[in-house]
Amino acid sequence: MSLTCGIDIGGTKILGGVVDEDGAILAELRVESPATDEEAIERAVCDLVRRLAAEHDVSAVGVGAAGYVDKSRSTVMFAPNIAWRDVDLRAELERDLGLPVVIENDANVAAWGEFRFGAGADVDDLLLVTVGTGVGGGLVLDGALYRGAFGVGAEIGHMRVVPGGVLCGCGNHGCWEQYASGSAMVREARSEARGGSLLARRLLDLAGGDADRITGPLITEAARAGDPFSVEQLATLGHWLGEGIASLAAILDPAVCVIGGGVSEAGDLLLQPVRQAFSAQLTGRGHRPSLEIRKARLGNRAGLIGAADLARH
Amino acid sequence: MSLTCGIDIGGTKILGGVVDEDGAILAELRVESPATDEEAIERAVCDLVRRLAAEHDVSAVGVGAAGYVDKSRSTVMFAPNIAWRDVDLRAELERDLGLPVVIENDANVAAWGEFRFGAGADVDDLLLVTVGTGVGGGLVLDGALYRGAFGVGAEIGHMRVVPGGVLCGCGNHGCWEQYASGSAMVREARSEARGGSLLARRLLDLAGGDADRITGPLITEAARAGDPFSVEQLATLGHWLGEGIASLAAILDPAVCVIGGGVSEAGDLLLQPVRQAFSAQLTGRGHRPSLEIRKARLGNRAGLIGAADLARH
Amino acid sequence: MSLTCGIDIGGTKILGGVVDEDGAILAELRVESPATDEEAIERAVCDLVRRLAAEHDVSAVGVGAAGYVDKSRSTVMFAPNIAWRDVDLRAELERDLGLPVVIENDANVAAWGEFRFGAGADVDDLLLVTVGTGVGGGLVLDGALYRGAFGVGAEIGHMRVVPGGVLCGCGNHGCWEQYASGSAMVREARSEARGGSLLARRLLDLAGGDADRITGPLITEAARAGDPFSVEQLATLGHWLGEGIASLAAILDPAVCVIGGGVSEAGDLLLQPVRQAFSAQLTGRGHRPSLEIRKARLGNRAGLIGAADLARH
Amino acid sequence: MSLTCGIDIGGTKILGGVVDEDGAILAELRVESPATDEEAIERAVCDLVRRLAAEHDVSAVGVGAAGYVDKSRSTVMFAPNIAWRDVDLRAELERDLGLPVVIENDANVAAWGEFRFGAGADVDDLLLVTVGTGVGGGLVLDGALYRGAFGVGAEIGHMRVVPGGVLCGCGNHGCWEQYASGSAMVREARSEARGGSLLARRLLDLAGGDADRITGPLITEAARAGDPFSVEQLATLGHWLGEGIASLAAILDPAVCVIGGGVSEAGDLLLQPVRQAFSAQLTGRGHRPSLEIRKARLGNRAGLIGAADLARH
Repeated sequence: MSLTCGIDIGGTKILGGVVDEDGAILAELRVESPATDEEAIERAVCDLVRRLAAEHDVSAVGVGAAGYVDKSRSTVMFAPNIAWRDVDLRAELERDLGLPVVIENDANVAAWGEFRFGAGADVDDLLLVTVGTGVGGGLVLDGALYRGAFGVGAEIGHMRVVPGGVLCGCGNHGCWEQYASGSAMVREARSEARGGSLLARRLLDLAGGDADRITGPLITEAARAGDPFSVEQLATLGHWLGEGIASLAAILDPAVCVIGGGVSEAGDLLLQPVRQAFSAQLTGRGHRPSLEIRKARLGNRAGLIGAADLARH
Repeated sequence: MSLTCGIDIGGTKILGGVVDEDGAILAELRVESPATDEEAIERAVCDLVRRLAAEHDVSAVGVGAAGYVDKSRSTVMFAPNIAWRDVDLRAELERDLGLPVVIENDANVAAWGEFRFGAGADVDDLLLVTVGTGVGGGLVLDGALYRGAFGVGAEIGHMRVVPGGVLCGCGNHGCWEQYASGSAMVREARSEARGGSLLARRLLDLAGGDADRITGPLITEAARAGDPFSVEQLATLGHWLGEGIASLAAILDPAVCVIGGGVSEAGDLLLQPVRQAFSAQLTGRGHRPSLEIRKARLGNRAGLIGAADLARH
Repeated sequence: MSLTCGIDIGGTKILGGVVDEDGAILAELRVESPATDEEAIERAVCDLVRRLAAEHDVSAVGVGAAGYVDKSRSTVMFAPNIAWRDVDLRAELERDLGLPVVIENDANVAAWGEFRFGAGADVDDLLLVTVGTGVGGGLVLDGALYRGAFGVGAEIGHMRVVPGGVLCGCGNHGCWEQYASGSAMVREARSEARGGSLLARRLLDLAGGDADRITGPLITEAARAGDPFSVEQLATLGHWLGEGIASLAAILDPAVCVIGGGVSEAGDLLLQPVRQAFSAQLTGRGHRPSLEIRKARLGNRAGLIGAADLARH
Repeated sequence: MSLTCGIDIGGTKILGGVVDEDGAILAELRVESPATDEEAIERAVCDLVRRLAAEHDVSAVGVGAAGYVDKSRSTVMFAPNIAWRDVDLRAELERDLGLPVVIENDANVAAWGEFRFGAGADVDDLLLVTVGTGVGGGLVLDGALYRGAFGVGAEIGHMRVVPGGVLCGCGNHGCWEQYASGSAMVREARSEARGGSLLARRLLDLAGGDADRITGPLITEAARAGDPFSVEQLATLGHWLGEGIASLAAILDPAVCVIGGGVSEAGDLLLQPVRQAFSAQLTGRGHRPSLEIRKARLGNRAGLIGAADLARH
């Protein structure tokens, strides 16, 4: 049976694993990410692969990383958090490892993982929306990963949803991720708490009285415990998500929209508002079949599993 | 040599033609469309095909029509201007004509026409934006027509660009086509003219003093003749188009965006503002390759040619 | 004791009354309004006054009407629903009646009524927001009716709240009254009902299955009976109202904002969301004293009473 | 002849002067502002007044400062840049100086100055819009300074113009000053320059290649020298200003809108776009008289002159 290695380079950790043809993880390792030092990251990736390959017969390596990866799946053209600029990461890793390597965008590998072995295994057309620090996206269309003409498609978080809206790190105003990401939710909750809102008091108490310690997981925890303000923060986020997904459904018409990323842990507290806003906003509603909105199934291993599987194809 | 017949059912006319494997039109016929009477439309289509097939050895028929066409390319689920509701148009036409038939959305066949024989013949990933009464779209991705999981994808005119924006016939607020269509341009120009704007006077004079006779072609004609107000109307439309295409490029990353539809006749008066707004709004600009914006090449025959070619595949 | 006559010319009826110095109505008459026929309206007003003056010793007449009234309180420069264009209504009525007359905008007289004898009798600075077909406004500042330099101030319904928003009858996009009026609420509710929304079914049933028979009072009635969809419609309207009032409070800093007009009959179903949105949106909240939001007290007699009182001053 | 002293406490300097009944400045002094140290500021103000009063017979003192000043013109409830929180500045200064003192908001004193001796000396109703770091406002209505029920009116920069818009320091989204201030213009110009825009190159060169050194005065200078990008920045700012003024005209109907603040130095490069956008956006245009838009006449001495004059009344 053919085994491959999947690597997911995140902002704070690098995750590696040996994955079989059914998407099962046979071994898994995790190391701290050497932050923004690109050479240290490459060494850490090689080290992870060697340790995994020492125990398992690995035939190829798939690597997922945030950033723009070129059409040939070799070169990282630009990464937001690491200093890669037009680096042929594939060539460098293949030389060091002596194994075939593919490089792919992190949300794309996660989409592929959910498509092959997760929440979208039963359909041909899937949109993955990852809701975390930003809003990422991955597209599987007609059963194939859709990467765009230049490899930089599915950057759905930068669809503009408010003209003249909140400034985005990308330089534009009003990008979707400024409204539908975990960071956006936290920004608004902190702002309310700092402003002395009575509504936010319970959440602020949970944060030890320090608005800067309000986080996405804390909001989810408070919402689960019944704090109405926190429930509303998730609902507002869900509303923006659902309305954006309605626009994406008009354009892409996928069979399933899978919601992943850290905030998706909130489950129905998030998904219920997402579904409601989506239904109220979908163009042609009532005259067309429509996608299903599902929670991701592979959690934070979707990238690792998807990367490993892409290395096989 | 294999010949097929392409039919394009428009709002005011039905266009039919015999097309060869290179996209050349060997014969062409045009009849008035029997408006909203769906049976009369089907008879007119059959009649057109028979007249064309009498002179040429036609092996299949492709039909383009506005509306939602199901994934199997048989059933019109919904059409905005004709009373088709879940009608198996393919079965009816095949029974009457004794030829294989495919039904396809009108913007989709036009996109396929431009991809095979027009402005996108050199690329694999193409986005067609048709700017007329509404804003229609067609997607060719990785060399194949992308239809969506249910056949109703590429309805790009219903991406929401302004929350709480202008009401759309689809029931939503702020759909792109309410800002980037010819109708939107005409609506705004008429409103200015009715309001007694001095700026709009020259255009109003050209319309014989009757604001309701201001049309898209009249604005284009006046703009060509140097009327600053009309130039600005096209520029405003182009601005909305370019900004919307920037969002679509973030999502789809096509190699080429082809601008078709009646308003595209304005040429650079429209395309120059489109390109400028697109460049100013594209996420990640400077760090990524980017699509080219081109004028459609097949004019109003793109649908006929595309439909005929799809019938062959 | 001095008595004056107040007249309120509405879209469907003309209301007249004899009012004393304490704002008490001693006699009241109501006739159907002769729609848009301006001469018939003037005759009807004169007839009403004569009938009232026959029984009471009336010393002056105040007339409230929708439209732009000039600074001298004589001339109706423009009326949206009646064909008055620069008509010196005051001169015409004084000639016919032989009594001193003042003409004033309808929302202004209502604001003056509420300020003198209603919900704002205890303050010096009052903003009246009338929520009906449109959104009207009246301003009492430092104890005096504020009319603007040209008499056309307080047209608060035409503050723009959404760039590129819903088209307004005034020719602009995104005016406040397109979101915060009863008409806006009805437009949205009908649109949902027509679209087949399950949520709107109960309301649609109450309207006998005909979306066009959904009205503001019907929504209020359904909301009172517990229909969640109708409650939400009032809450959405209240939200837009509260956010707009926050902008007006930044500009005007009144002591009280009085909500009048037909929709204000919904009481706390409307006012509660208004207050919540206002509190969440007021600039400088926590660092400044802030206005109170109150329901109007004089109902649809505010205009009559205010007009009569203005005639006295 | 009665002389009074006017003091204008700005972010970087404190300006003081002796002013006569005609608004003429007989003596003027300027000191660096001790930044955010409120006691040092009070000492500096007293020192300035004493030096001026040593040479001139001053009967009262008027002080303008950024912040919320209570209705009695005594207490600074909140100041954005100085640590005054509910400080009775009037009582403290009167005790130290032995002279009558009035405290007033900085934009209010400037509005009063322009009304009494500057660009609005011929009208009764004036709106001052100061365009600098933020957007400030002052209102003279019916010939009197309008301060609001609680003294905190005319905060026009915090009217919301874009729902979900750019975050404001006040905690809200989409405040006018996030689009219509000099800071907003500089923010956008820097962002374009940082993004490597070719259009911004000339301006960037003028800033020595450092986007952070692009300032409002530099943009004005470059625009005067014909740089199209800088001209466009001022026009965009002017557009937002004009549209906002149209909303304010609907609400307030002033006779004159005076544009002051640092950016107004750009003259017609700013005012021309302001006037154009205002005319295109005013509700009821064509059916109503309308305000005139003028450049401020007293420059940065408007506050000093206005404060001195208010001290006299």
